[in-house]
Amino acid sequence: MARVNDHYLELKSSYLFSDIAKRVKAFGDANPGARLIRLGIGDVTRPLPPAVIRALHEAADELGRAESFKGYGPETGYPFLAEQIAAHDYGARGVKAAPDEIFISDGAKSDTANIQEIFAPDCVVALTDPVYPVYVDSNVMAGRAGRADQAGRYGRLVYLPCTAENCFSPALPGRPVDLIYLCYPNNPTGAVLSRDALSVWVDYARRHRAVLLYDAAYEAYIRDPDVPHSIFEIEGAREVAIEFKSFSKTAGFTGTRCAFTVVPKELMGRSATGAPVSLHELWFRRQSTKFNGVAYAIQKAAAAVYTPEGQKQVREAIDFYMENARIIRDGLAAVGLTVYGGRNAPYIWVKTPSGLGSWQLFDKLLSEAHVVSTPGAGFGPGGEGYLRLTAFGQRAETLEAVERIKTRLTL
Amino acid sequence: MARVNDHYLELKSSYLFSDIAKRVKAFGDANPGARLIRLGIGDVTRPLPPAVIRALHEAADELGRAESFKGYGPETGYPFLAEQIAAHDYGARGVKAAPDEIFISDGAKSDTANIQEIFAPDCVVALTDPVYPVYVDSNVMAGRAGRADQAGRYGRLVYLPCTAENCFSPALPGRPVDLIYLCYPNNPTGAVLSRDALSVWVDYARRHRAVLLYDAAYEAYIRDPDVPHSIFEIEGAREVAIEFKSFSKTAGFTGTRCAFTVVPKELMGRSATGAPVSLHELWFRRQSTKFNGVAYAIQKAAAAVYTPEGQKQVREAIDFYMENARIIRDGLAAVGLTVYGGRNAPYIWVKTPSGLGSWQLFDKLLSEAHVVSTPGAGFGPGGEGYLRLTAFGQRAETLEAVERIKTRLTL
Repeated sequence: MARVNDHYLELKSSYLFSDIAKRVKAFGDANPGARLIRLGIGDVTRPLPPAVIRALHEAADELGRAESFKGYGPETGYPFLAEQIAAHDYGARGVKAAPDEIFISDGAKSDTANIQEIFAPDCVVALTDPVYPVYVDSNVMAGRAGRADQAGRYGRLVYLPCTAENCFSPALPGRPVDLIYLCYPNNPTGAVLSRDALSVWVDYARRHRAVLLYDAAYEAYIRDPDVPHSIFEIEGAREVAIEFKSFSKTAGFTGTRCAFTVVPKELMGRSATGAPVSLHELWFRRQSTKFNGVAYAIQKAAAAVYTPEGQKQVREAIDFYMENARIIRDGLAAVGLTVYGGRNAPYIWVKTPSGLGSWQLFDKLLSEAHVVSTPGAGFGPGGEGYLRLTAFGQRAETLEAVERIKTRLTL
Repeated sequence: MARVNDHYLELKSSYLFSDIAKRVKAFGDANPGARLIRLGIGDVTRPLPPAVIRALHEAADELGRAESFKGYGPETGYPFLAEQIAAHDYGARGVKAAPDEIFISDGAKSDTANIQEIFAPDCVVALTDPVYPVYVDSNVMAGRAGRADQAGRYGRLVYLPCTAENCFSPALPGRPVDLIYLCYPNNPTGAVLSRDALSVWVDYARRHRAVLLYDAAYEAYIRDPDVPHSIFEIEGAREVAIEFKSFSKTAGFTGTRCAFTVVPKELMGRSATGAPVSLHELWFRRQSTKFNGVAYAIQKAAAAVYTPEGQKQVREAIDFYMENARIIRDGLAAVGLTVYGGRNAPYIWVKTPSGLGSWQLFDKLLSEAHVVSTPGAGFGPGGEGYLRLTAFGQRAETLEAVERIKTRLTL
């Protein structure tokens, strides 16, 4: 008899964005004339940069000719892309990451969900609250989370609250943990960690032989020169950290799917006998067994991001989104709302006023301003009392959304 | 302290194709003048069909314009592709598979490796011997396999021998099993199962509430009208089977990455309490949490396979490879070798003569004919005494390889 993985039955019944989609659909059905503006899901809206489009065309032509056709590529990615990443994302910042430490994949979502597979099921997992739900759910599925209480907190996970009270910078866990998910610039709060704050985590991980799982998917939005772009800018991090990055938000690849994960060769876990085991080797084995690489054309497209024109075009798009972020911040502040984030991240984290719950403010924004947001509670109990808006919209819509909030929202 | 997944340490030290690559490199380094012909790894060599290339160009243009740009798509694939699959791969054969039962992914390797995640760790797994190594390794990693003996057989897996003696058609397992991997047309033996033989497995699965994991990645190579193209052609299979298919071998997508998995809504596993649990829902949850869909451009390219011109071009490529298969079969038979497969599959399974071991014949082919093959023993102990050749080469090289085998191989 085929028994299922019972841990799946501990998952909360549906995924945040499905819940939102249902409420939005119900509202749209009841109000067919309403023109919705979506500032909810963190999806980009600007087209792929011309340099990327040209690379896609060139790759298509190559694949159509026998002499330049490409079949299976290296499971961990083509060197032509890994070398660009090593040079631009790391070498140019004085950070060491060898091309063969870079694992190219179809997305940071896949990588941050899959990485836990190489660790023991009884590892204690710490994560921030609020948090990107994939870190939680992938550990629930693997049996590391235990059961959820009424508030949605799983008994075996260690939650690190991030609220306005601690400036969204988590305190060290109160008990020993083995795996620590950190995402900076943060989704959903838009917060960043300073070099000193990150050093505290690296030191903690070194002392406890813990591993930091560092999601830097929004790194390209950092403006403050004092904020590290990579965990590996912190001394000693190569012995304790895995870093995830993506072309999704950097270069508009949310629907084009390319990302990468850096696993330094110094990084060791421990076997049951206490022997050191290379996490680089385990991840290589995981990826070469359960994955077969990213499409050649997509890797060529990603490599074009690193050309001089690609860099310029990507920078323009990010500047555009960051101007949206400013518009949202300023607009919401003008009506008396307290806003966080949006300075080094494409997310604006809004404090709900007058004791409103996250979903209450979500519903008010939807019904009064016809603006779709993301309730903070969807990112975990610690997100209750907040709401996330994204800067990824088009300019006219972003301006109109802010105008509607200013003129229609009753607070 | 970050403990690793100790099951990984039970994996055999390296992957088959890495071992081959090492021997080939050593030979090439020692014989720099030798011109190798590779009939080892099952990778296609013909360019992508023109209809697919055109679709890639069109998609690139769409992604470059704001009004037609695509961000995140549905995690399980775009309906435009799922509907084509449902109509052509299933409906046209009188088989029911709804578009929302089709999960589009980046490869049958990923899907056949990941599918075990939705099942309990104590499920008993049966698989053929020889077998595609990914089924074994993904279960080793999940802890379902136990330890390997000297011959490489894992203690908790149930092996179903497939040899010339049983015409490469496995007998039912001698003890109850929960998950059964079947791959037909088979990699590596090139064997197919008749409708009656498949019905035996569906009946077995129904009686034992087992689940068949049916890998039909080579379905497009079936020539015999009596051989089923889908497990779902067998009555009752929707209640016991999951099917995997791929564009890799059908349309040259080995480096372009698109495949799909069909999980019927009737299919149930059981929870610890014995309650039925929808495997469709579990797989949806798995994919929507740990995966984020296939690139839009790649899905458009895959959809072009179903246009009238795409179908014609794909058929031409398959005919071309099957003519290679005939050339290899006839050539090897002419020198007195016993060959199997190659009639409904792109693989030719060669019996090693004179009591030679798999790796011995591999080394002879390499050193005498400069032809790279795949030793049968690499697919499991049951593959010992066999060798796999593929029909995916270019014509001139395939002809030359056969000529070299005829004239240079000393048997």
